[in-house]
Amino acid sequence: MAEKCVVLLSGGLDSATVLGLARAEGRECYALSFEYGQRHRVELECAREQARRAGVARHLVLRVDLDAIGGSCLTSAGAAVPAADLARERIPSTYVPARNTIFLAHALAWAEVLGAPRIDLGINAVDYSGYPDCRPEFLQAFQKMANLATAAGVEGRGEVRIHAPLLYWSKAEIIRRGLACGVDYGRTNSCYDPDAAGRACGRCDACALRAAAFAEVGIPDPALGGTA
Amino acid sequence: MAEKCVVLLSGGLDSATVLGLARAEGRECYALSFEYGQRHRVELECAREQARRAGVARHLVLRVDLDAIGGSCLTSAGAAVPAADLARERIPSTYVPARNTIFLAHALAWAEVLGAPRIDLGINAVDYSGYPDCRPEFLQAFQKMANLATAAGVEGRGEVRIHAPLLYWSKAEIIRRGLACGVDYGRTNSCYDPDAAGRACGRCDACALRAAAFAEVGIPDPALGGTA
Repeated sequence: MAEKCVVLLSGGLDSATVLGLARAEGRECYALSFEYGQRHRVELECAREQARRAGVARHLVLRVDLDAIGGSCLTSAGAAVPAADLARERIPSTYVPARNTIFLAHALAWAEVLGAPRIDLGINAVDYSGYPDCRPEFLQAFQKMANLATAAGVEGRGEVRIHAPLLYWSKAEIIRRGLACGVDYGRTNSCYDPDAAGRACGRCDACALRAAAFAEVGIPDPALGGTA
Repeated sequence: MAEKCVVLLSGGLDSATVLGLARAEGRECYALSFEYGQRHRVELECAREQARRAGVARHLVLRVDLDAIGGSCLTSAGAAVPAADLARERIPSTYVPARNTIFLAHALAWAEVLGAPRIDLGINAVDYSGYPDCRPEFLQAFQKMANLATAAGVEGRGEVRIHAPLLYWSKAEIIRRGLACGVDYGRTNSCYDPDAAGRACGRCDACALRAAAFAEVGIPDPALGGTA
């Protein structure tokens, strides 16, 4: 029987790659997405499409009230998303407080219910926006906490492992590996501030990172209709 | 200026006590409750009443989809809540996978947005139902993870502390301390399986623990109309 894993699936380039890698390993994948008041809700449509294409065992979309908590321009309709500045020293306003902790906590609950020994997510410590919850030391601490939190851990029914295969890859390497296992990047959204039709803004950190990576790989970004 | 804290407020006896203690310290309290598909939804009415009485700065009730994840009789309408058995060796079916991790993760987000250096919660390692996420080692691991997860921790704007004042108190001691700071236990719900009118079942673990504690303190449980 294929081993299960819960895959955090945002609908972006990174998580689509993680799902593609898990499928290529032959895992039975349970995709988990969140409606959290994000302004870039088009990513949920992309997540549904990626889950469908990958033939996941189940795709769960949960509501979390991060917009009620606030603290990020990504969940505040009135706040502007800053222009790309990958050399900035402060954590940008696109940071959503404790978002990965909250997402991983839900994934932990589902993994325990499913008996899945692994949670996969697409965080990256190289080409990233400087978020504290994308760092390896955060992941290690989360995994340690997770195995003290659950009945499965305590009763010895198996520990859960937090699997972040992209952690040390460049964005270009992520794309190359994803293409090798058949990921369709035409149906992914990375932009923090797409327009009403779901078109990328081309000016935020995420757009800048993505454009640079496709340029490095030497192919046009298929999400831009091949015109990039 | 009073120091802030985020208080996880379920509407039960323990969390009402924690809120009372924080108020007695002169803290500015931000109460956080969750609608998570729990069958004992009467506890949310109790939480609202406790928050009002304590004069909290704000009371936020967030929706989390734990019922969509499942794995507990507390979030499954069809499943029976087991009769009290405090000598059982296995973790009971009232355990909700990763619930405290998910609640604390939301509290962490709010604490970061508020600039609150402390998160208070009423977990207890003595008179409890055997849940893994009520143990001191879980709390310590969560706190370590939390300070790696947030911008506040990384940028040196202050670490967050997880404060569990009841951790090593007996249920009777919790009640005595709560009474000393004016907690109204008449407006708390501890029962896992109240009836439609919000009346305690009298047979679950939580009812058994509560009844034994009021008996030890030597006063009737005010939530039972003084007839206990």
